[in-house]
Amino acid sequence: MIGIDQYLEEKKALVNRALMECLPDSGPQEIREAMIYSLEAGGKRLRPILTLAVAETLGKKDDQVLDVACALELVHTYSLIHDDLPAMDDSDMRRGKPTCHRVYGDAIAVLAGDALLTLAFEVVARYGLKSGQFKKAILISSELSKAAGVKGMIGGQVLDLKAEGRELSLLEIENISIMKTGALLKASVMCGAIAAGAGKKERASLERYASNIGTAFQIIDDILDVESSAEELGKPTGSDRKRFMPTFAAVLGIEEARIKAENLCNEAIMAIQDLGRPVEILNGLAKKLVFRTK
Amino acid sequence: MIGIDQYLEEKKALVNRALMECLPDSGPQEIREAMIYSLEAGGKRLRPILTLAVAETLGKKDDQVLDVACALELVHTYSLIHDDLPAMDDSDMRRGKPTCHRVYGDAIAVLAGDALLTLAFEVVARYGLKSGQFKKAILISSELSKAAGVKGMIGGQVLDLKAEGRELSLLEIENISIMKTGALLKASVMCGAIAAGAGKKERASLERYASNIGTAFQIIDDILDVESSAEELGKPTGSDRKRFMPTFAAVLGIEEARIKAENLCNEAIMAIQDLGRPVEILNGLAKKLVFRTK
Repeated sequence: MIGIDQYLEEKKALVNRALMECLPDSGPQEIREAMIYSLEAGGKRLRPILTLAVAETLGKKDDQVLDVACALELVHTYSLIHDDLPAMDDSDMRRGKPTCHRVYGDAIAVLAGDALLTLAFEVVARYGLKSGQFKKAILISSELSKAAGVKGMIGGQVLDLKAEGRELSLLEIENISIMKTGALLKASVMCGAIAAGAGKKERASLERYASNIGTAFQIIDDILDVESSAEELGKPTGSDRKRFMPTFAAVLGIEEARIKAENLCNEAIMAIQDLGRPVEILNGLAKKLVFRTK
Repeated sequence: MIGIDQYLEEKKALVNRALMECLPDSGPQEIREAMIYSLEAGGKRLRPILTLAVAETLGKKDDQVLDVACALELVHTYSLIHDDLPAMDDSDMRRGKPTCHRVYGDAIAVLAGDALLTLAFEVVARYGLKSGQFKKAILISSELSKAAGVKGMIGGQVLDLKAEGRELSLLEIENISIMKTGALLKASVMCGAIAAGAGKKERASLERYASNIGTAFQIIDDILDVESSAEELGKPTGSDRKRFMPTFAAVLGIEEARIKAENLCNEAIMAIQDLGRPVEILNGLAKKLVFRTK
């Protein structure tokens, strides 16, 4: 049994290589460059690693689900590019580097986002055609499109834009977090489960695991945004607060928010103890999410 | 045998009803409104009608392919919203109505486009899950994502943006047209063919049909853009010319361009004569594309 940090490093390297292989081998140079730029801007690759970890927990090898894992990261990266646009959050920096539209212009940034979203579904289709797992591929495509759509990520971003400068209740903040961040994190887990052929009971346990780590992740993000220095996070410190953005940290206070995140982490871990599978990696991932420092 | 005009009217009404049923039944109100606004802005519904017509020619009923047909229109509508954005073509009007971003703002317009693209893949997945035709659904999802991607529509839009103010050869204009417009028209035909279970030979004939009408369609669009009045087209007349946009009409002259379109139409019709199917509707659609006045 390797440690969680080594596990994360290895999977991240695996995902990074696979993402580059997903990219189109022809088409206009500038859009492919912008796609690569944003994909290479770093990030923890949390979503694809969750997919790999769930599939592995259920007995699948990485190479059987790597395409699916990449699709999750492609959707995540598209959403960051579009969220950063001047029309949206108007962010100049992301992970310590200028955002896509600052380097390639707004038009190419819109199109690079569109292209990554489109590519995600192409990659899922390719997984189905390569493996012959047509039904699984369709279930994954369905899961991914719902998580990314109006009832998930896009809807969450709309609510987030509307929330700027307003006071929200904890319930409203939780709802935005579930849609904007939680939906895709849950899809990452569920797509791994579908690819591994999980049964109904296993899927229910994993869904509870996913929901809990999704909200925990957002709470920790809010706390880090308040606490961290600009240098560490790669974006202006407290940017959410500057926009008078209601967050878990703002409403609960940092200490209570952290306790809530730890409780959610424990609930996530409890949800999967009855899987009858080796859950060390999933336990480790849940803890890593809550006790991370960036 | 009904006339082509009546056929188009009937199918358009069918597609319009089905599109409204594709829309999410929950999620933030403003994004759903923006999606409906752009979907209801009109248009000929050419792409979904092509899908229905091809499937019907190969013996499938409308209700067996209606979801697939809608997916094509959802992708088309998303591309119009994003193309109209200030960062791209910066168009205030489309089909005689203010564009999506003029009514709902740039942020919601970006997200409404994203949502329609995402919904297209959700609708294709739903087709697969409802019909149990998993392999066909995956092939359709693959076809659609490739047509919409960097080697298709998005790549074409990048080249189109770069072409502004430059002189292009006929070959370059043809290439942009094939990517930007032709790819999705071809996908409309091929998705109908896949849903209807077309064989290899049938698919090859239909692909030739689709390629020829795709370019013919673009040529006629260019001609109409030069000829029509602002009122008729619902956008400023000659807008492509004003931007010094190289078009078929500009390079070939209107008369030669029209002859080229007619030749392509004839080639499209010839391509499907050996199908051994009743091709009157597909013949009629090809002619309608070339002899339309708007």
